[in-house]
Amino acid sequence: MTGFMGDNFLLTNKTAERLYHDYAKKMPILDYHCHLDPREIAENKKYRNITELWLAGDHYKWRAMRANGIEEKYITGDASDKEKFMKWAETLPKCIGNPLFHWSHLELKRYFGIDDLLTPETAEEIWEKCNELLQDDAFTARGFIARSNVVALCTTDDPVDSLEYHRAIAADDSFKTRVYPTFRPDLALAIDSPGFLDWLARLEAVSGVKVESYADYTEALRSRIDFFHSVGCRISDHGLDQVFYREGTPEEADRVLRKALRGEAVSKDEGEMFKTQVFLFCGREYAARGWAMQLHMNAIRNNSARMFALVGPNTGFDAMGDQTYGEALVKLLSDLDATDELPKTILYSLNPMDNELLATIGGSFNAAPVPGKIQLGSGWWFNDQKDGMIKQMVTLANMGLISHFVGMLTDSRSFLSYTRHEYFRRILCDLFGTWVEKGELPNDLEFLGAVIEDICYNNAERYFNLAL
Amino acid sequence: MTGFMGDNFLLTNKTAERLYHDYAKKMPILDYHCHLDPREIAENKKYRNITELWLAGDHYKWRAMRANGIEEKYITGDASDKEKFMKWAETLPKCIGNPLFHWSHLELKRYFGIDDLLTPETAEEIWEKCNELLQDDAFTARGFIARSNVVALCTTDDPVDSLEYHRAIAADDSFKTRVYPTFRPDLALAIDSPGFLDWLARLEAVSGVKVESYADYTEALRSRIDFFHSVGCRISDHGLDQVFYREGTPEEADRVLRKALRGEAVSKDEGEMFKTQVFLFCGREYAARGWAMQLHMNAIRNNSARMFALVGPNTGFDAMGDQTYGEALVKLLSDLDATDELPKTILYSLNPMDNELLATIGGSFNAAPVPGKIQLGSGWWFNDQKDGMIKQMVTLANMGLISHFVGMLTDSRSFLSYTRHEYFRRILCDLFGTWVEKGELPNDLEFLGAVIEDICYNNAERYFNLAL
Amino acid sequence: MTGFMGDNFLLTNKTAERLYHDYAKKMPILDYHCHLDPREIAENKKYRNITELWLAGDHYKWRAMRANGIEEKYITGDASDKEKFMKWAETLPKCIGNPLFHWSHLELKRYFGIDDLLTPETAEEIWEKCNELLQDDAFTARGFIARSNVVALCTTDDPVDSLEYHRAIAADDSFKTRVYPTFRPDLALAIDSPGFLDWLARLEAVSGVKVESYADYTEALRSRIDFFHSVGCRISDHGLDQVFYREGTPEEADRVLRKALRGEAVSKDEGEMFKTQVFLFCGREYAARGWAMQLHMNAIRNNSARMFALVGPNTGFDAMGDQTYGEALVKLLSDLDATDELPKTILYSLNPMDNELLATIGGSFNAAPVPGKIQLGSGWWFNDQKDGMIKQMVTLANMGLISHFVGMLTDSRSFLSYTRHEYFRRILCDLFGTWVEKGELPNDLEFLGAVIEDICYNNAERYFNLAL
Repeated sequence: MTGFMGDNFLLTNKTAERLYHDYAKKMPILDYHCHLDPREIAENKKYRNITELWLAGDHYKWRAMRANGIEEKYITGDASDKEKFMKWAETLPKCIGNPLFHWSHLELKRYFGIDDLLTPETAEEIWEKCNELLQDDAFTARGFIARSNVVALCTTDDPVDSLEYHRAIAADDSFKTRVYPTFRPDLALAIDSPGFLDWLARLEAVSGVKVESYADYTEALRSRIDFFHSVGCRISDHGLDQVFYREGTPEEADRVLRKALRGEAVSKDEGEMFKTQVFLFCGREYAARGWAMQLHMNAIRNNSARMFALVGPNTGFDAMGDQTYGEALVKLLSDLDATDELPKTILYSLNPMDNELLATIGGSFNAAPVPGKIQLGSGWWFNDQKDGMIKQMVTLANMGLISHFVGMLTDSRSFLSYTRHEYFRRILCDLFGTWVEKGELPNDLEFLGAVIEDICYNNAERYFNLAL
Repeated sequence: MTGFMGDNFLLTNKTAERLYHDYAKKMPILDYHCHLDPREIAENKKYRNITELWLAGDHYKWRAMRANGIEEKYITGDASDKEKFMKWAETLPKCIGNPLFHWSHLELKRYFGIDDLLTPETAEEIWEKCNELLQDDAFTARGFIARSNVVALCTTDDPVDSLEYHRAIAADDSFKTRVYPTFRPDLALAIDSPGFLDWLARLEAVSGVKVESYADYTEALRSRIDFFHSVGCRISDHGLDQVFYREGTPEEADRVLRKALRGEAVSKDEGEMFKTQVFLFCGREYAARGWAMQLHMNAIRNNSARMFALVGPNTGFDAMGDQTYGEALVKLLSDLDATDELPKTILYSLNPMDNELLATIGGSFNAAPVPGKIQLGSGWWFNDQKDGMIKQMVTLANMGLISHFVGMLTDSRSFLSYTRHEYFRRILCDLFGTWVEKGELPNDLEFLGAVIEDICYNNAERYFNLAL
Repeated sequence: MTGFMGDNFLLTNKTAERLYHDYAKKMPILDYHCHLDPREIAENKKYRNITELWLAGDHYKWRAMRANGIEEKYITGDASDKEKFMKWAETLPKCIGNPLFHWSHLELKRYFGIDDLLTPETAEEIWEKCNELLQDDAFTARGFIARSNVVALCTTDDPVDSLEYHRAIAADDSFKTRVYPTFRPDLALAIDSPGFLDWLARLEAVSGVKVESYADYTEALRSRIDFFHSVGCRISDHGLDQVFYREGTPEEADRVLRKALRGEAVSKDEGEMFKTQVFLFCGREYAARGWAMQLHMNAIRNNSARMFALVGPNTGFDAMGDQTYGEALVKLLSDLDATDELPKTILYSLNPMDNELLATIGGSFNAAPVPGKIQLGSGWWFNDQKDGMIKQMVTLANMGLISHFVGMLTDSRSFLSYTRHEYFRRILCDLFGTWVEKGELPNDLEFLGAVIEDICYNNAERYFNLAL
């Protein structure tokens, strides 16, 4: 029996240990997808206490606290920071088997040197120790990033964003990690959402393009893609909670856009056709610039209308969906592929039953020259745990080429989440090590170690082609 | 190698052994969901032979016999009890890998002290031995329950049931196990089924309410809920083979009900709207009384019309469905949650691909003060086997809090099925033990043993709040 | 640690080793489903080099090469055979974790005695060695079959096929392996496809029946079924990429067929009704002759229209679908079952999330006297790898009777694929061996060895009832 979270945590055999300690551990991090606030990096945010750092924005923890029967007051409400921390300390021991139990203790261990479990009994001491350390300059937004050996990270940004903080960070030679935006035009597709015209007004303002037609609209979007490109962006992201596909033309999209501009209601069919057109437009622009495109599918969000009214979106009230969308996705990709304008694409579904579907759909659009051009993305959100990661990797291996996998991302709003890369790497090395021990892979550590290094870092560097 | 079904059956490491033998084994059983006939408990049924006890009502075994090519005559037909037993003895060795192989031998071992495998060679001897023991007063309906350390069990009952046997059992001080009804109003929603008006007539009779409007209808239903409550019921159950959701109002439900009362056909849309309204009504009543609500989803029943005509329902001709219902389920729960009238809810799907869906949908409605208020239920029916149980527990752990899991139920028509709790507990302990051995959980047996005890019994006691 | 692909490859314990070496290994092969070209068998094809044998028709390898970023020129294009081989040698080391890595090395080892890994470094030597051996008469189509201990194999054939090569092989006493056709009438259902009338003309020609009505049509089809039967065919196969079901009658099918004969467009609903009728007709004919029926479901094919135009179908651009079809499938089977005309049926889905669905739907139609009459088929296509096989077997075991499983098939276009039976058998033995080692099965090797032998060969011999 190995101890809890010891040196060989999650490494169940000697080969796995060597792969992790000799190859994976030393690799830097390229966190190509996260939700950090670039302003906090630019301003090198300091934290008044561990609650602000750890609990203020983490809907995973909030959700676990609600499942533990904790009153909302202690989660997002007006209880004191210390009270909130104490309620979290009460909840964490209940999280055995949940990734929060590993993540949280790994974060305490790696960033704060705390080996104790967080429980109601240890909470006071840990509260004091963390808060004391948070006075130190190494315990700031930039400090956490630097200590985590992060070469580059990509935030998630609206097309209308000024990217002022990205530019400020880039201009500051004292900070070595590259911080790039990701182009996420969800609102550009959302013609059927109440906020569309407001968003359009912001687009007009930042692009300087008066939008009276679909041609204007794509011109404005193109100018934002160019602007993002100029700031170093090479990755886009689409949240397709429901995958849509409806045939249409730019002319039909024009007609629908004009309707929306006149304040008229857009039907469901018209909305889907418009979204399809904008999606295809974007995909072609990405392909032309060598960008990668991420698609995030099958989510149902803000399920509790009651809590949405109280605390807003991204607060822990979301779930996966069970929509079937294979054919729609094939058509979206095929339309881009038809003219050889399908960009590099990473497919994520929130529902793990879609893993095999996505791996094989992606596999039917691979084409030279990019190795692993279309690939199944790392276990997303609810799947970002040991079993979900293994499922994703085994599926990608069986139905694609795991050798070209671009690997882990944090997808996080927290500066402590880089330990998830460690978590991922241990699981990856254990998978490979177990294969070797069982005679399913040749026992050639040099060869396999190079593949591990590729998945940990090199593949992402090659695939995304960011300026590093 | 451990022997077949030895003391450490299913326990693959030392930690698992200690968790099972020191913590799980001694816990009593609260079987909160079964299909036992309360009359057989009230009358303390005796069995003329092992076939009557073991084979007369068990559609799992029937189904296996059909898969083994056995003629229906020996399954539900007019062959003698002994002939049927012999055909089952012929079938059981073919069931390796199927839970029946474990369940059946565990039942022979624990209740009859038989360690031999049942085969055509041993059948005669086992037939004799079982039948001899069945003469003993310990081998009766109550005897099996008492020997199984069952504190309470909950049967499944129609709203129009008189609950006379539940009341008789409650009045009999000589029997210690509490036997409570579960409110299962499937027929109350089935306005589009041919038997609806007949059922309604029975409802009118038992409730004393003449139903001429939807207001009358809900009054009648409420009176039954009150009646069930008075007999100790604290749990409801809905079989949603197909999950429905259609917006409506009590006024619209009234219009549809009056149509049905006039003998007019109700459209599919009208039927779904009516069901939605009745479901929401029931949910609010449950919430008001602190009941728990169970939802059983995604089944396709009575698939062989030919055999249905011969042997009726619940005879082994059912399957799981692959309906997609995530959004509909979210709406059903959200409508109750909107006014904070969502009761404690346990979600079950017959299709295990829905595990993650249900765990995350449930997780988006948790709220204080009940820990684990909405949870993924134990592996149901076809999933009530080692792999299905592990999948369910791992999903609940990863996407919720397994610490608050209310654990196992038999879902059975047989008085021998309590060994399924033993089966479940061994699998649970092995899961936790393996986590410890691999360093994924702290090696703190006192802490983990308490969680095991909670899942085996204490959580159910707290969650359901039955009078014990 | 066992070595890579050593004697005990995939066998992780002693029981597994004994089950494989003492029972499984010696069993002959009945390859009841493949896509070999009977002409190549009849003519005993020789190969100019390893590329022609190994790469010329293998869309699995092509797909992997595309995922590795290889130019199409080296895959299906005009590069030389040697260049193509070198590009494959470059790709194979990238396939770790993919079944191609195991399959390819197993084929090199078993047929060519090559123990080295194929890499760019070893490619030249392996190219020479293979090509030299391919001059030998043991390295021909028949040679590979004979060396693989294949008792019988079933190809996949269109109803209009003359079966001339099957007849030629049957007439040739020098070749011991039986080669039977499989009746695959996909085109007979495809009334909505552009090629339907051309196919119908071929049907008329080979059957000698002028088709002017649905009665004529079924007469023509029946004559082909009779013809296939006379050549030894006992198995049919339907590719139901999308499962359909729409009520209708032969009279309505007649009306739709006449429309098609007049060159008029057939609506989606009419097409589905027609397909349903033809499917039911076929099923009844199979049942009357004691044939088995295979159903292959949930595929999306030819996803890249661009590549389809260049290289045609079955070239590596397919994926699984996520269609939900449980109810439609139940109705198709139930309509046949209603009159007790449901043939033996094997259900395959390309999407592994359907495993449990199919196992339980099949299980609800089992009936005497054939053991395992309706069963879940072996892991198909993308699922034909270790994890997919284990999933399929564990599901079949848990939800049916694995004892009656008809086991493995190659589904292949290659004469080297018989090693997939070895692969399957090792995985099967490891599953059973692990169950024994963990105390989940009795440690009775004689009993379990017989079950293993049944699954490897005997069950298929009994179930399909081919003349051997």
